[in-house]
Amino acid sequence: MDVTNKLNSLVARVETGLDQHVPAADTRPARLHAAMRYSLEAGGKRLRPALLLSAAELGGLDGDEALPAAVAIECLHTYSLIHDDLPCMDNDDLRRGRPTVHKAYDEATALLAGDALLTHAFALLAEAYADRPALAHGLIRELAATAGSRRLIGGQMADLEGEAKGDATPEELEFIHLNKTAAMIETALVMGGLVAGFDVGQLDRLRTAGRHLGLAFQIVDDVLDVTSDTATMGKTVGKDEATEKTTYVRIHGLDASRRFITEQTDAAVAAFSALPGDSTFLQTLARNMASRAA
Amino acid sequence: MDVTNKLNSLVARVETGLDQHVPAADTRPARLHAAMRYSLEAGGKRLRPALLLSAAELGGLDGDEALPAAVAIECLHTYSLIHDDLPCMDNDDLRRGRPTVHKAYDEATALLAGDALLTHAFALLAEAYADRPALAHGLIRELAATAGSRRLIGGQMADLEGEAKGDATPEELEFIHLNKTAAMIETALVMGGLVAGFDVGQLDRLRTAGRHLGLAFQIVDDVLDVTSDTATMGKTVGKDEATEKTTYVRIHGLDASRRFITEQTDAAVAAFSALPGDSTFLQTLARNMASRAA
Repeated sequence: MDVTNKLNSLVARVETGLDQHVPAADTRPARLHAAMRYSLEAGGKRLRPALLLSAAELGGLDGDEALPAAVAIECLHTYSLIHDDLPCMDNDDLRRGRPTVHKAYDEATALLAGDALLTHAFALLAEAYADRPALAHGLIRELAATAGSRRLIGGQMADLEGEAKGDATPEELEFIHLNKTAAMIETALVMGGLVAGFDVGQLDRLRTAGRHLGLAFQIVDDVLDVTSDTATMGKTVGKDEATEKTTYVRIHGLDASRRFITEQTDAAVAAFSALPGDSTFLQTLARNMASRAA
Repeated sequence: MDVTNKLNSLVARVETGLDQHVPAADTRPARLHAAMRYSLEAGGKRLRPALLLSAAELGGLDGDEALPAAVAIECLHTYSLIHDDLPCMDNDDLRRGRPTVHKAYDEATALLAGDALLTHAFALLAEAYADRPALAHGLIRELAATAGSRRLIGGQMADLEGEAKGDATPEELEFIHLNKTAAMIETALVMGGLVAGFDVGQLDRLRTAGRHLGLAFQIVDDVLDVTSDTATMGKTVGKDEATEKTTYVRIHGLDASRRFITEQTDAAVAAFSALPGDSTFLQTLARNMASRAA
């Protein structure tokens, strides 16, 4: 299977969906909507929406039924990046090789653009699936639980507290990785499964796959922060070391980190294999991701 | 009718609901949840949730069916206050007579507590009405549309741009008032009507009443900013004048502002009167609110 072609084709669908399902840049107030579009158009990896569409395809959906859900999860992810980059948080000037939103616009606009993308994720799900209210409800319930104070935002808060403290324990680090990173990967896959009408057992398997994939993804990122450079990554790297941030690599070392990535990737692949449909793409995507840190 | 007793009893129900339907302060991460509770427990007027419960009562609901929706709208309102108070926005140190969240905690915690309350509003609606997915969907659709970039956040953005420009036009000011203030008052009433099962025509009447009530409420606030003092209001007043902010009072003068309040209040009362059930409380509440600026 040509994974690159497949991924490119999924990403192209996501880009089209973003253009269709997010208000135009000249919508009043124009500065706010332009900032929302600026942040979405930075051209990230689109990992979460691509996973969502792939999970829906396992259930036989390859039309546009899952596209609004994919756009919603990318809006939610992008809001979290905008707010994470703010001066009172990570204070990052560069994201995906471009000025962050508060640098390109200003702090207030970045704050509101993030708020608006978070809100739009729920509005879009409610509107696009209005003729299937039970599905709309299920998608919103899943996304809101994962994006909330116990998971995504809780993970970000714990991450900030760990930085302030300077010596997060392995257990605290796991809390952060499970909630700040893995949570949205799980939910991307589960939302795809919900649109495709998967049963509870299948949804559980998608969630398991997402947890392992998300943990692998986080440690790959930590490894690359040590072994890569800013030009390749399109964002500031070496930052964990410079800020003496506690990472998996710092606690366990590079070798153990690479072993952990392999274990988690194997577990994700096993969970994908136990699902109906042809999961070759998802399995290969997981393997390729892991190989970046090898 | 004893409006004060009735309002106190509604507010007491809202306080109980907030305690029941928001995660405990020691939920992990504790600092985040403590900040969320700190902001909610500041004891505001609870106007929006009280209106929501009152609208539901017009439809015969006086149990707790509407309480989660009332808590959700207060969470959403409180998020907007936390973010509005941040240094990059209005930079307010005082809210309801207490330090604002970023003063009592820190900016990052305030940002995340706001994000978490916004997200919790949708999570709560999805959970609490899970056995009535069509109702959950309707409530979320209404709230998300109103809280989004075209209305609540759009109004806030336009307000900031007006302040930067220093000379908002009457039309720009109306956009701000309709979206920053009236939108959530409309939606509070409409959500109460949705829980009570009102038909489309009745929901429209609730929306109309909310728009007029919201506009009156905003101009009352502007008038009080000129005529009241900080101790009485529990927040910084005279701020509009000090910052040379364009307000309805500044453009049209105090007399025209008071006439406008009376007109809008009359229109709200008329819309309430055209609804089923005994709307005496809502009518009297509107009149009393207007009388504060008389």
